[in-house]
Amino acid sequence: MTHSAPQPALSVPDLIAKKRDGAAHTHAELEALVLGFTRGEVPDYQLSAWLMAVYLRGMTPQETADLTRVMAASGEQLDLGSLKDTVDKHSTGGVGDKTSLVLTPMLAALGLTVAKMSGRGLAHTGGTIDKLESIPGWSPELPEDRFLAQARDIGLALVGQSKDLAPADGKLYALRDVTATVPCLPLIASSIMSKKLASGAQTIVLDVKVGAGAFMTTPEAGRELAQAMVDIGTRAGRTVRAVLTEMDTPLGFMAGNSLEVQEALATLRGEGPDDLTELCVALAVEALVAHGEDAVAAEQRARQTLRDGSALARFRAFVQAQGGDPAFVDDPARLDVALDRAEVLAAQSGFVTRVDALSVGRAVLALGGGRERKGEAIDHGVGVELLKKPGEAVRAGEAVLRLYHRGGRGLERAQELLRAGLEIGAQAPAAEPLILDRIDKKSDYSI
Amino acid sequence: MTHSAPQPALSVPDLIAKKRDGAAHTHAELEALVLGFTRGEVPDYQLSAWLMAVYLRGMTPQETADLTRVMAASGEQLDLGSLKDTVDKHSTGGVGDKTSLVLTPMLAALGLTVAKMSGRGLAHTGGTIDKLESIPGWSPELPEDRFLAQARDIGLALVGQSKDLAPADGKLYALRDVTATVPCLPLIASSIMSKKLASGAQTIVLDVKVGAGAFMTTPEAGRELAQAMVDIGTRAGRTVRAVLTEMDTPLGFMAGNSLEVQEALATLRGEGPDDLTELCVALAVEALVAHGEDAVAAEQRARQTLRDGSALARFRAFVQAQGGDPAFVDDPARLDVALDRAEVLAAQSGFVTRVDALSVGRAVLALGGGRERKGEAIDHGVGVELLKKPGEAVRAGEAVLRLYHRGGRGLERAQELLRAGLEIGAQAPAAEPLILDRIDKKSDYSI
Repeated sequence: MTHSAPQPALSVPDLIAKKRDGAAHTHAELEALVLGFTRGEVPDYQLSAWLMAVYLRGMTPQETADLTRVMAASGEQLDLGSLKDTVDKHSTGGVGDKTSLVLTPMLAALGLTVAKMSGRGLAHTGGTIDKLESIPGWSPELPEDRFLAQARDIGLALVGQSKDLAPADGKLYALRDVTATVPCLPLIASSIMSKKLASGAQTIVLDVKVGAGAFMTTPEAGRELAQAMVDIGTRAGRTVRAVLTEMDTPLGFMAGNSLEVQEALATLRGEGPDDLTELCVALAVEALVAHGEDAVAAEQRARQTLRDGSALARFRAFVQAQGGDPAFVDDPARLDVALDRAEVLAAQSGFVTRVDALSVGRAVLALGGGRERKGEAIDHGVGVELLKKPGEAVRAGEAVLRLYHRGGRGLERAQELLRAGLEIGAQAPAAEPLILDRIDKKSDYSI
Repeated sequence: MTHSAPQPALSVPDLIAKKRDGAAHTHAELEALVLGFTRGEVPDYQLSAWLMAVYLRGMTPQETADLTRVMAASGEQLDLGSLKDTVDKHSTGGVGDKTSLVLTPMLAALGLTVAKMSGRGLAHTGGTIDKLESIPGWSPELPEDRFLAQARDIGLALVGQSKDLAPADGKLYALRDVTATVPCLPLIASSIMSKKLASGAQTIVLDVKVGAGAFMTTPEAGRELAQAMVDIGTRAGRTVRAVLTEMDTPLGFMAGNSLEVQEALATLRGEGPDDLTELCVALAVEALVAHGEDAVAAEQRARQTLRDGSALARFRAFVQAQGGDPAFVDDPARLDVALDRAEVLAAQSGFVTRVDALSVGRAVLALGGGRERKGEAIDHGVGVELLKKPGEAVRAGEAVLRLYHRGGRGLERAQELLRAGLEIGAQAPAAEPLILDRIDKKSDYSI
């Protein structure tokens, strides 16, 4: 009967009904739902109904970007405004992925600034902080002023992720995990990007993994996720570029914390495995292109940091600045690696067609090199080495994988997992490129 | 890798994912979800995600029937096996709906047995128990043995609904109410039918209301609900028949507890309003047809019970058996009706085109004749009388509605509601039939 009354605020059931019926939320509505939930004012049983409606009805790109901004603003937000050319990097999970260890000192050597928060490993996925803690003395804890000063001086500082970083994301994820609403593109993209936005860097380079060991198993799904994340960052005023990389097999030859640091140091000396080196160069190129450099020149400059020792020098300075003993950087053989060894042998002659990344990750976990639950201690010295990678010929009885274990702990289970993930065929598999695609804001995008 | 392993029981997130992806649940899966939730083992935040998935993905007729059986079996189930030709009746809510007061003694007079649980009113909807409590002494509380004996002797016993009747329904409804999952056909149909199945009658006659004052506002939605409920009952081995009735305007002329009992008693004496009489006859015919009678003969027999006083006699015996004073049945004018009166006048001359049932229900509530929350006391004597019904001519200033109030309590608000629900136009509205359709198990049905 009244026509001029102001629009009343919608109740929570009204907001759920709006998404249920396929409409798009405003920023204020997403704030009411997500911050209300984070503060404990909106109960979980309402949020979970809303999450299922989001799962089945989707979100527009603008809604997804708004949701991400709301989550990013739900806690502490790092102000990197005093630093120049800040770059952050994110990988969507991976096994044996020591990319950050190599890429971040490369970026510092290239004149960019990396002031980054990293996570610890969980389940079969490793974490950069765990890997760095293989270096005696190195600590992920720095007060904010020292963190910023170190980033300014060395171009590289790396701390553990603050508990107050995008707390809405943590609460939402815990609810999604038990309500069958995890595999939902706008929710995955906003979850990742909320932490990146709150971490403050102007440029964000994304490594979106695709394949058996990754969250997204098909290139199509990976491309959609990459496009959604690039769109979110662009709408938030950041420069975001993504590469889509194959992740059926672990990167390099090593999985396990100390083993991966050794491999990363070899790469920083210019002696690393091709796939790891190429991925790090590709990501560095994306960061430089985001800062206006020509791609060809950028690639030359990026490779140079591995040849001339400038990236290694940055890594050494970074380790020392955060309390680590640089002697272990100079002589990586001193890092603690388990002395007990076992092998998985080829059951037949032929070509290795598959070394399943997920199986390798689970094997490291079984050996004690990862944690099932947050807070659990891990053994940095255990791990798995790929003696042969897909495409290589093997003879029956030849060793394909080596396990570094402690007195047989978890060995049987790890071997079982590795055997299940290993395939040997009569023909060599077709070689697939590591980098499947590059995505920036010019890509088409629709959800 | 294994092909012969037994199917493991699905986890709750797996079950939610199954519905999320549009698959149909088994009876055992619905039991795990719904009984688990009722027992407090499955948390509300999981059930609400599942309810939203049900809302958006739907349920097959078999699933809906299975869900209903699971809910019916979640608590006490009345065993009416010792009684012959048991009939239950359900109306999907209505204003001024005194049908049960007239129909149930008619059915008893026709040789059928009504051993029924009824509810109390809430918000704008009245309840049969509240209406009967207008009769001094009448009580809805009977031990089960006396309840069954009375149904056997008189053919009619009516008690309040047990708290342990389909407790799963109550818990699910409370969750649906706050998660925007109420208006969902399989959930509405299973909610109603779970209580009917648990109440034990072999034959169930449904009065599905359609229109402004009803849960289902369009005939199409009402027909779908009726078909779903008939299908559920049929799959559970009951005989179910439904009529679809128009509910834009209250039935009869009276709304309010004592006023409706007076109108019901007039109807039982053969002097009731046409619409109420016709609906009661139609529902009695459905019950008789369900027991194999010819429709034409059934209609004659049904009308006869209102002419020969046999239905009234059953009602009198029923009131007396449950402690009520039959003097009030013999002389309904003695029932307590509020002495303060006020009227709503026609603002212009013309034809009454609308007396909104919802507005009338809310006006009775405002006067104190209903309750906002369970457990609140009500005033049986207040109410609203329709002096003119849609189609009748009025002159400007003529009284259209009369309010029975207590010293002005809620009067202004009630008048406001009634004025908002009253429309007078230049032309008489097209007369619409009260009974829009009849639905039994031969109807097509798909969700």
